Amino acid sequence: MIDVGVLGATGYTGVELIRLLGRHEQVQLKFATSRSNPDRSLAQVFPGAPDFNLIDPEHAALEDVDLVFLCLPHEQSAEAAAAALQAGTRVIDLSAAFRLADADTYRRWYGQRHPAPELLDEAVYGLTETERERLVGARLVANPGCYPTTVLLALYPLLLESAVSGQVIVDAKSGVSGAGRTPKLASQFVEVAEDLRPYSIGRTHRHLPEMEAILARWSDTKPRLIFSPHLVPISRGLLSTLYIPLRSDWVEPQLHDLYLETYTDEPFITILPVGEVATMRQVNYSNRCVIGMTEVDGTLVVTAAIDNLQKGAAGQALQNMNVVFGFEETTGLL
Amino acid sequence: MIDVGVLGATGYTGVELIRLLGRHEQVQLKFATSRSNPDRSLAQVFPGAPDFNLIDPEHAALEDVDLVFLCLPHEQSAEAAAAALQAGTRVIDLSAAFRLADADTYRRWYGQRHPAPELLDEAVYGLTETERERLVGARLVANPGCYPTTVLLALYPLLLESAVSGQVIVDAKSGVSGAGRTPKLASQFVEVAEDLRPYSIGRTHRHLPEMEAILARWSDTKPRLIFSPHLVPISRGLLSTLYIPLRSDWVEPQLHDLYLETYTDEPFITILPVGEVATMRQVNYSNRCVIGMTEVDGTLVVTAAIDNLQKGAAGQALQNMNVVFGFEETTGLL
Amino acid sequence: MIDVGVLGATGYTGVELIRLLGRHEQVQLKFATSRSNPDRSLAQVFPGAPDFNLIDPEHAALEDVDLVFLCLPHEQSAEAAAAALQAGTRVIDLSAAFRLADADTYRRWYGQRHPAPELLDEAVYGLTETERERLVGARLVANPGCYPTTVLLALYPLLLESAVSGQVIVDAKSGVSGAGRTPKLASQFVEVAEDLRPYSIGRTHRHLPEMEAILARWSDTKPRLIFSPHLVPISRGLLSTLYIPLRSDWVEPQLHDLYLETYTDEPFITILPVGEVATMRQVNYSNRCVIGMTEVDGTLVVTAAIDNLQKGAAGQALQNMNVVFGFEETTGLL
Amino acid sequence: MIDVGVLGATGYTGVELIRLLGRHEQVQLKFATSRSNPDRSLAQVFPGAPDFNLIDPEHAALEDVDLVFLCLPHEQSAEAAAAALQAGTRVIDLSAAFRLADADTYRRWYGQRHPAPELLDEAVYGLTETERERLVGARLVANPGCYPTTVLLALYPLLLESAVSGQVIVDAKSGVSGAGRTPKLASQFVEVAEDLRPYSIGRTHRHLPEMEAILARWSDTKPRLIFSPHLVPISRGLLSTLYIPLRSDWVEPQLHDLYLETYTDEPFITILPVGEVATMRQVNYSNRCVIGMTEVDGTLVVTAAIDNLQKGAAGQALQNMNVVFGFEETTGLL
Repeated sequence: MIDVGVLGATGYTGVELIRLLGRHEQVQLKFATSRSNPDRSLAQVFPGAPDFNLIDPEHAALEDVDLVFLCLPHEQSAEAAAAALQAGTRVIDLSAAFRLADADTYRRWYGQRHPAPELLDEAVYGLTETERERLVGARLVANPGCYPTTVLLALYPLLLESAVSGQVIVDAKSGVSGAGRTPKLASQFVEVAEDLRPYSIGRTHRHLPEMEAILARWSDTKPRLIFSPHLVPISRGLLSTLYIPLRSDWVEPQLHDLYLETYTDEPFITILPVGEVATMRQVNYSNRCVIGMTEVDGTLVVTAAIDNLQKGAAGQALQNMNVVFGFEETTGLL
Repeated sequence: MIDVGVLGATGYTGVELIRLLGRHEQVQLKFATSRSNPDRSLAQVFPGAPDFNLIDPEHAALEDVDLVFLCLPHEQSAEAAAAALQAGTRVIDLSAAFRLADADTYRRWYGQRHPAPELLDEAVYGLTETERERLVGARLVANPGCYPTTVLLALYPLLLESAVSGQVIVDAKSGVSGAGRTPKLASQFVEVAEDLRPYSIGRTHRHLPEMEAILARWSDTKPRLIFSPHLVPISRGLLSTLYIPLRSDWVEPQLHDLYLETYTDEPFITILPVGEVATMRQVNYSNRCVIGMTEVDGTLVVTAAIDNLQKGAAGQALQNMNVVFGFEETTGLL
Repeated sequence: MIDVGVLGATGYTGVELIRLLGRHEQVQLKFATSRSNPDRSLAQVFPGAPDFNLIDPEHAALEDVDLVFLCLPHEQSAEAAAAALQAGTRVIDLSAAFRLADADTYRRWYGQRHPAPELLDEAVYGLTETERERLVGARLVANPGCYPTTVLLALYPLLLESAVSGQVIVDAKSGVSGAGRTPKLASQFVEVAEDLRPYSIGRTHRHLPEMEAILARWSDTKPRLIFSPHLVPISRGLLSTLYIPLRSDWVEPQLHDLYLETYTDEPFITILPVGEVATMRQVNYSNRCVIGMTEVDGTLVVTAAIDNLQKGAAGQALQNMNVVFGFEETTGLL
Repeated sequence: MIDVGVLGATGYTGVELIRLLGRHEQVQLKFATSRSNPDRSLAQVFPGAPDFNLIDPEHAALEDVDLVFLCLPHEQSAEAAAAALQAGTRVIDLSAAFRLADADTYRRWYGQRHPAPELLDEAVYGLTETERERLVGARLVANPGCYPTTVLLALYPLLLESAVSGQVIVDAKSGVSGAGRTPKLASQFVEVAEDLRPYSIGRTHRHLPEMEAILARWSDTKPRLIFSPHLVPISRGLLSTLYIPLRSDWVEPQLHDLYLETYTDEPFITILPVGEVATMRQVNYSNRCVIGMTEVDGTLVVTAAIDNLQKGAAGQALQNMNVVFGFEETTGLL
């Protein structure tokens, strides 16, 4: 049994996390913070959320818990992580603050100096399936972005075998909760409901360096990505369609076996039969990642779907917590 | 051929109006204003809108047009109306500024003194079907609210005959565009998409005094309303379900005949056969109001549907313009 | 620990039930049937559903389980219930087959003779909060309809005190999953997405006699209902807005206390503070019923929201199972 | 002034066409047919549609009109086209019957012999912008598929200059109305609303041979496509995201100029500034095609959006009619 706190509890990620924590029998939620709504119940601020009292982040007793989850903007996360670690408390950060191992890359993409560069080395990138060993007992976990979770899980088996021969195209589609809960015109119902909208196309989205840095660790082939996210009129869900040029010596049945073997025994990864496609509905409200594939003219077309708030955020954070503390990995997630 | 201007062009109502004006052959749009986006094209500010250059309201030459439409917040509308009338220009105001004939009632419901009380007497309430004669040549038209348009058209035939015997219940449902385009949490896609939400229930919504004032003009019975608006996850559309206690001497076939006769020759009113119901889809993107009715145990259940941006706002404004200037009433609207 | 089976597993209700059963630690799912898809996995027939093998209903070993849930059309349910009871197996029926205690009323509303009238006396109406004592150990439970669940819970406290003075108006709004999974034009995405649609208005919907029969058991005042269901473009959720004429000796604070007292200790009923409204989002994916109220001119306006697939169907079925077998009532539902 | 008829009036395409025809001043609609609903009004069969009487197709006087539009399944279209031409009546066919110039290709992709192969030579492929000259006075027009309209308009300028260096990837997203109005499980609201779903990925969709045949006519480079359509929870709209490998001598500004020049004076094509993206909302309820582009690492990423029922079907059919009969091309479409 461990005690945990959540900093930044009133966004979509924070609420999803608190819901999941409520079903986990080895965890006790000690506090949940909100800068804008301290002293109210979470259920008042977020209809349907658990009835848990919020406190001001200033009053969060970091030293009294074993772990804090950070559901904060990345600038605030970096500072909160440093404070928690100093208090001897483990951290799982759901922001982008510690996803890039390199402070210069951070500066280039986030337009400011990293607030806690001394912690970058220690942070473990929390893509559970590929980083499991490093996660055990980790003090600081950088939970992956939602898009990178699908893209990296879809490419990992190929990269291990250096089976990719060139530029990879990722055409990704995300539900609107991925844009956060702060009101903005682009997220208003009427603007979204009649629209499907590409954005940050090519090599401009902040998830790009995150993905390419991890790919580079897996293989010297270091494939470059073209990454095209699209906003779709759906609340939650994320689907990436990848177009991957193959080294010519790979054929479809081998590739499928490769995926099956790589992810054998993985409780949250489902490899579909050849020719079937992943869809958002297959993973709605679950922590699973479903992967489908078809080979076409030397290109592997891979579809990978997750629930952006679960495997793409809060679910994977809980999965990581389970690994860090040695709980059964699926606890609270099935 | 007349020249018109639109003040406040970038909201849902303003854009709908500019689209409709583009199809009207006897009208020339001379200017459209935006305080926040002057010197840009409307299409840049509102995807899919006509490519028309916006100007700062300070530069609007009110005196150069025959008519201005005001798609502004009610406080600004009152001032703009005064300025336009002084410049000798007619006004159709789509805000609530001139809907209440009584300055005290305005003060009570809008929490401030009326900015131009001297104009209240002149303002004609623009429910076209019932006010047509007063609209001809009017200098200042107060375009009705979206909810009142359905409720008043649904009650008008009964009121003329004093057929209502008591309190009328109005359970109304509106699409999200009715809440305007300014970003707010309650209008965010994720908040709306999984929800159906009553609000301002009972006798608290500002459309209540507007409706009851008009009802009082039509009949001494002055029925009181219980008014329950609901927000539904749909972009546009408005449906009111009315529960009307009948004087005992009225029976269903008579009532149906009464509606048919009252609205005979009305190009935008459709009375359904007894037992059929109005639905939002029947009026989507049209200026029609569809009305259905069923008598149950002495209560007349009436359903009335409009497109909130057309008959509930911009469409009726155009219809009123046609009447004011003596054009064919359906021009630009079929 | 008990063994259960589900007959008719591939509809929205069946899948929701199987999901919930998967989280209940004192229940083992032994079989799930599908006439149209035997020998396939549920996950193949319903994306995202658990990976459980379906069997033909002919092969369901009713005698091997302690309980069967019937998620079948009402005609089939009546026959299956008789077979299960004969095999010594308890039944929770989610269809309308045993909701009406009277075979004549059934015949009038469902257009056919009741297939198993001898069982009607034994069937317990499964509105858990009001029928808890009769449910303990029951052999045959008739799970309530989705609309009646909200309407009856909203009226129960008032009926006990005979506080209702006349006709009650129920304006109800339901998500599309309530219409079932069999393809029909009226449930197609394009037909629904742009629409809000009343149907079976007045005194024609089959849930009407179900509601009035229960109300009559609670009070001699036997209020008649006007019942207006509406279909809304949302997948799941149900909201009823009730307009209830009050006996003149009741005032708002008393009424609120009455609700609080009646439902004190009820784990799934939430009474909101006076003036607040129930919304669908407050109960999304939960087994709760949220009730709000406001008194207006002698009429109590009550809003009551449930998730139609949980408290309106599968959730309440599980809650009833917990009561029947003496488990903690909230097991598997929080 | 010409007289026209519509065969197959009650689907999404037929109704859209009849709405557009209602605004066209040089056209008189003489008949509209429905096999399943003869002798009813279109408005009864399709809420919100014009109130036009349907007739049985057997009673359609083909010889009395100048043109028939065929909104039928492709098998029926082929026969109806032959009958109409024999009666001396021009034909615009919105089905796939005459889109493939080659009867063998048709047989391979549609699984049956072509019902009227003798007409294939005469059929003009109705992509208005590229086939305008052949359309003037044409007797038989094969209106393009919705996906091909975006893909072909997006590739045309590059093909003319042979600027494409290899395999083109098309990741396309379509609204649900593209799947037609016949009820099916995959189009039910609940199935669609929570989902985003790829289908017929790779080289299996019937629009693939249509697109590649036209591309082959424009350039010897004959690029092969990988084509991945996705179904999105939106009623209408279509967006294709294309990834086009460029011959190395082309740079972004040149490419943009090429598009601007190719489509200069085209009333329905909008080329966005470099770096901007096309979205569905920009073209909602219009006959426009909006095209955006960005060059990334030698790949041109093009986004192309249309309203699938207008430029993707009924709108382009009307545009073609205007060209065939020598009317102003934009009549009835702005």
